[in-house]
Amino acid sequence: MKDTICALATPPGGAIAIVRVSGPNAVSVTDSIFSKSIKDAQGYTLHFGKVKDIEGKELDDVLVSVFRAPHSYTGEDSTEISLHGSSYIVQNFLESLFWAGARQAEPGEFTMRAFMNGKLDLSQAEAVADLISSSTQATHQMAMSQMRGQFSGELKELQGQLLHLTSLLELELDFNDQDVEFANRGQLSELMDKIEEHISLLADSFQMGNAIKNGIPVAIIGAPNVGKSTLLNALIGEDRAIVSNIQGTTRDLIEDTIQIGGITFRFIDTAGIRKTKDKLERMGIERSLQAAEKAKIILLLTESNLPFPEIQFRDDQTVLQVINKCDMSLPSTSYLYHRQPTGRLFHISAAKGDGINLLRQALVREASLPTNLDATHSIVTNVRHYNALKQSLEALQRAKQSFAAQTSTDLVAEDLRQCLHHLGEITGSEITPEDILHNIFSSFCVGK
Amino acid sequence: MKDTICALATPPGGAIAIVRVSGPNAVSVTDSIFSKSIKDAQGYTLHFGKVKDIEGKELDDVLVSVFRAPHSYTGEDSTEISLHGSSYIVQNFLESLFWAGARQAEPGEFTMRAFMNGKLDLSQAEAVADLISSSTQATHQMAMSQMRGQFSGELKELQGQLLHLTSLLELELDFNDQDVEFANRGQLSELMDKIEEHISLLADSFQMGNAIKNGIPVAIIGAPNVGKSTLLNALIGEDRAIVSNIQGTTRDLIEDTIQIGGITFRFIDTAGIRKTKDKLERMGIERSLQAAEKAKIILLLTESNLPFPEIQFRDDQTVLQVINKCDMSLPSTSYLYHRQPTGRLFHISAAKGDGINLLRQALVREASLPTNLDATHSIVTNVRHYNALKQSLEALQRAKQSFAAQTSTDLVAEDLRQCLHHLGEITGSEITPEDILHNIFSSFCVGK
Repeated sequence: MKDTICALATPPGGAIAIVRVSGPNAVSVTDSIFSKSIKDAQGYTLHFGKVKDIEGKELDDVLVSVFRAPHSYTGEDSTEISLHGSSYIVQNFLESLFWAGARQAEPGEFTMRAFMNGKLDLSQAEAVADLISSSTQATHQMAMSQMRGQFSGELKELQGQLLHLTSLLELELDFNDQDVEFANRGQLSELMDKIEEHISLLADSFQMGNAIKNGIPVAIIGAPNVGKSTLLNALIGEDRAIVSNIQGTTRDLIEDTIQIGGITFRFIDTAGIRKTKDKLERMGIERSLQAAEKAKIILLLTESNLPFPEIQFRDDQTVLQVINKCDMSLPSTSYLYHRQPTGRLFHISAAKGDGINLLRQALVREASLPTNLDATHSIVTNVRHYNALKQSLEALQRAKQSFAAQTSTDLVAEDLRQCLHHLGEITGSEITPEDILHNIFSSFCVGK
Repeated sequence: MKDTICALATPPGGAIAIVRVSGPNAVSVTDSIFSKSIKDAQGYTLHFGKVKDIEGKELDDVLVSVFRAPHSYTGEDSTEISLHGSSYIVQNFLESLFWAGARQAEPGEFTMRAFMNGKLDLSQAEAVADLISSSTQATHQMAMSQMRGQFSGELKELQGQLLHLTSLLELELDFNDQDVEFANRGQLSELMDKIEEHISLLADSFQMGNAIKNGIPVAIIGAPNVGKSTLLNALIGEDRAIVSNIQGTTRDLIEDTIQIGGITFRFIDTAGIRKTKDKLERMGIERSLQAAEKAKIILLLTESNLPFPEIQFRDDQTVLQVINKCDMSLPSTSYLYHRQPTGRLFHISAAKGDGINLLRQALVREASLPTNLDATHSIVTNVRHYNALKQSLEALQRAKQSFAAQTSTDLVAEDLRQCLHHLGEITGSEITPEDILHNIFSSFCVGK
């Protein structure tokens, strides 16, 4: 961490490009290729001048911002250089910086340095990446509150309570031969219940946090040619929503995500469902049914006078029954026989856009996600945090069992220490192994 | 120009986003959504704080740079705000600025204001767009020298000489009835020759300037299946060159441009040439031959033992004869009969990469463009400038003719005024109509 790093922090192709430099020699490295002397410049100052390429030729007019440790993003001496956004200029400017002694930063290395220098804890650092990738109010608010340290604060409080508990028990162990009890058994048990409840609450919030962050899984299930793709396009089209192919957390399917009413829905591609003897087609249908199982909301699609496909759903799934092509023929009442009691019925014409708005409203309603998050408890959105919370919960529950069974205080204290350890992993207050850190920051963009 | 404009100056998707604000209320507009008071901030100061969305909710941690008129890019009060590069943040921040009284800037509007406020003349302003889009050292140097005012300086000198000339003649007109001659006829004629030579030089430089900027047109001509596409890929591949589809200035073909040795080559797509009775194919071949006519360099491609296509070339075209697939069979000597005296011969295997380097070196040599420009005269790269120079040259030549024919001094002075007018169009020292300005700046990116 003694070296000086640099990277382009803006994507190629705009009017302005920003290059960041950070490290003990950030200012002198920048100074050596800049027309003005900034060696003794104070933090939070701006300087206009020219920069040179490695041949000493004038490369561009630039603005240099100087930051002094510890009052910078990384906590180190830093500069930010605003250049004209030309590929030639950026490339040659970076080469000049390399020549002057800086090296190309790795993804997330600026934020990693901020963490190392105590500017942010690990969960706050991870929130920076979430903040940059957030595209809805909900994801933005969750990332913002995590970056501000709400989650870290809650964890700190839990850690404090656990440490108090453990200390009392360990004090007893020190006086083991004297058979003293420093802690009131009833109060200890109460405290453990309270902590367990809080950790459970956080762990349970992950399902919602994940749905907000990665989208609520929705499957459109129906026979071939009832208009599944047309319906998806209609849902997308009306909102001019952002459509992208993201790889879901499950990674096994490439899915379309669209935003309706500030909520992200992740549509799972499914093949048309029908009775068939074709082996290959049956495999496709099998996959559709598996996809349907992962969905929170199912749009069961058919057209007038055709029955709905008969599929089993779970209790925690919402089924919306949709009859398409209502502009083509008047719906008879026959389909009502196939109506399942759990479902709600919508008549639409995906091609003409009729009834699509009602369906969209229903999707938002059934998502039952708060679009405006002012939670008193944090919402966990990060798989790493979720796994650490689950492990700490398991350790706490082991401790509770031993405590209730009045087995050795030794074991109880050991499990509480485990619980503390896993909570510490989240914020990095426990020493985090190099490879885990690397893994966390490698998902960042370069220049952050 | 009394309003305040704002725009995102970086492309979406990076770690950092920069929003620019400029206009009389730039600082107060920014101040109204910023957590710190910058109303009285001096120019060239940096401020770290929070910004709010239109609902008053905390949106992001930002860095604000303050610039005061006239010491800013636009010459107006300006701010530059560095945000986290999230689409949600950028969109909501711009909405906050709109709410606070700024409006979305049009493409190039910041630079247009810089021009209006006398920070740059028109040709310098146009150089800013060239600078941003430059991707080679040559284009960068040309744009840089134009932005620094070398071209403007030359024009100014020419204008000064012309004005002196015209003034002398007009003075004579005022004393018309007294039949005096203030100017020595021989000296006047000499001066006109000198000015004509200089303007011609500038106008002539356009061919080279255009080749440097838009690429040297190269056609690969050959029979079907001799490996034209493979050769193009081989030329591209070895340099990991930037490949893009740009629309040439001619606009009738979409072409591949690649950079070899710092020079941009524009490869023109051509169909395979052979004798055929198929009407449609003949039309394609006709188009290939037309394309070949526009090329400066022609790669005449064949394979061993096949003759070269017989095509007529112009004297100013360079023909490089290339025999492909030399790895497949030993070349016989029969092809030598088809060798044209103008051509130079290369044996290659496009598929294996043999001989490609020699061919690339030949391309760079035949391009005969200076890769390192330290011209004493400017090189014209802009069609608008070229047209203005041609028009001023025509006016000057008319003046010279009238002068030589000793027709009325009136006519000579009138044509010299025309010549001055067209030179003035280039730098905008003549008043430029609104629609022409609009046309010039609309090709800029937003935020510049």
